[in-house]
Amino acid sequence: MVLLEFSIYPVDKGASLSPYVARAVEIVSQSGLPYQVHAMGTVVEGEIEPLLQLVQRCFDALKADCDRIECVMKFDYRRGRSGALASKVASIERQLGRPLPKTP
Amino acid sequence: MVLLEFSIYPVDKGASLSPYVARAVEIVSQSGLPYQVHAMGTVVEGEIEPLLQLVQRCFDALKADCDRIECVMKFDYRRGRSGALASKVASIERQLGRPLPKTP
Amino acid sequence: MVLLEFSIYPVDKGASLSPYVARAVEIVSQSGLPYQVHAMGTVVEGEIEPLLQLVQRCFDALKADCDRIECVMKFDYRRGRSGALASKVASIERQLGRPLPKTP
Amino acid sequence: MVLLEFSIYPVDKGASLSPYVARAVEIVSQSGLPYQVHAMGTVVEGEIEPLLQLVQRCFDALKADCDRIECVMKFDYRRGRSGALASKVASIERQLGRPLPKTP
Repeated sequence: MVLLEFSIYPVDKGASLSPYVARAVEIVSQSGLPYQVHAMGTVVEGEIEPLLQLVQRCFDALKADCDRIECVMKFDYRRGRSGALASKVASIERQLGRPLPKTP
Repeated sequence: MVLLEFSIYPVDKGASLSPYVARAVEIVSQSGLPYQVHAMGTVVEGEIEPLLQLVQRCFDALKADCDRIECVMKFDYRRGRSGALASKVASIERQLGRPLPKTP
Repeated sequence: MVLLEFSIYPVDKGASLSPYVARAVEIVSQSGLPYQVHAMGTVVEGEIEPLLQLVQRCFDALKADCDRIECVMKFDYRRGRSGALASKVASIERQLGRPLPKTP
Repeated sequence: MVLLEFSIYPVDKGASLSPYVARAVEIVSQSGLPYQVHAMGTVVEGEIEPLLQLVQRCFDALKADCDRIECVMKFDYRRGRSGALASKVASIERQLGRPLPKTP
């Protein structure tokens, strides 16, 4: 399984990006894949193909009315791993011996 | 104020990265800046200079025993904004009219 | 048309990454899409779907023998634009009134 | 030595970003550090501290008249290495046994 983090937004719509980010998050939500939203992007877990198709659907949804779009993506694959959306942070907390602040 | 997200890790230490990530998170924690950890990185809020110095301290801490290090950073500045660590996700939730899943 | 930049590499194979990067570049080369290689990644131009499928093929090729893989991607879309692989840098040069250093 | 790649641009100034990118490239150029421009960013080689200070100067120059700014950075450190701006691509070419297309 792969963890994919991405953020996608237009640059031709002014400084307020949340309506466009919300549109992408809604598409992620409808995918049924486990995901989490934080202040700088969305993290989704799944197989590589549905994850990349999900980014494409978000892009298509913005392209409908945006003339310039930027997207930053990062993915992390570890053989045999699943549930990494929760286990990666838990593993850092175990290393440090205490809970860490997360998105409120 | 700036929101900076980053992840930093060695590529010469094998597949298990959490001891190195924990070392960086400890440095972020000691900075006193507001921060959050998620499955793909750490988000910190502050002025640009202390944020970049923080990344440098994390790098220096890994350089002590790592021969190859990769770091991905992304920052977002909006004039007059503070408290964005919480308010950006809240603003997406307001757009969608419901709470969103976050790092557990 | 979209410009996609990406870099993909294992973290479980030690500090020398070029054999794995070369494997990905070979796949990009065989795609027939226009591309350029620089010191930190590869930039490819095309429609979004074949570009994302190309990243997936590179991932599949590394997954064959790598247990942990990181990938960073960034894409830029501008409506009606093509040939941006060359025109974006040319446009900066026009702004500055002089040629810029490029990958040798 | 570190290779740093970055791109920085406003999102509140409309679809045409080249005047702002040119401003950042001019600052990179004046730093005296070796650098290269490609279609998705700028790659600079140096020690970590001057590289991060360079990004900060680019940010300060945009902040003068931009209300929202995004920046994506990536750096790669390998102990004992210098001249990587040229040698990394050369090493891929050696692996593949042929020259690769670069920014024209």
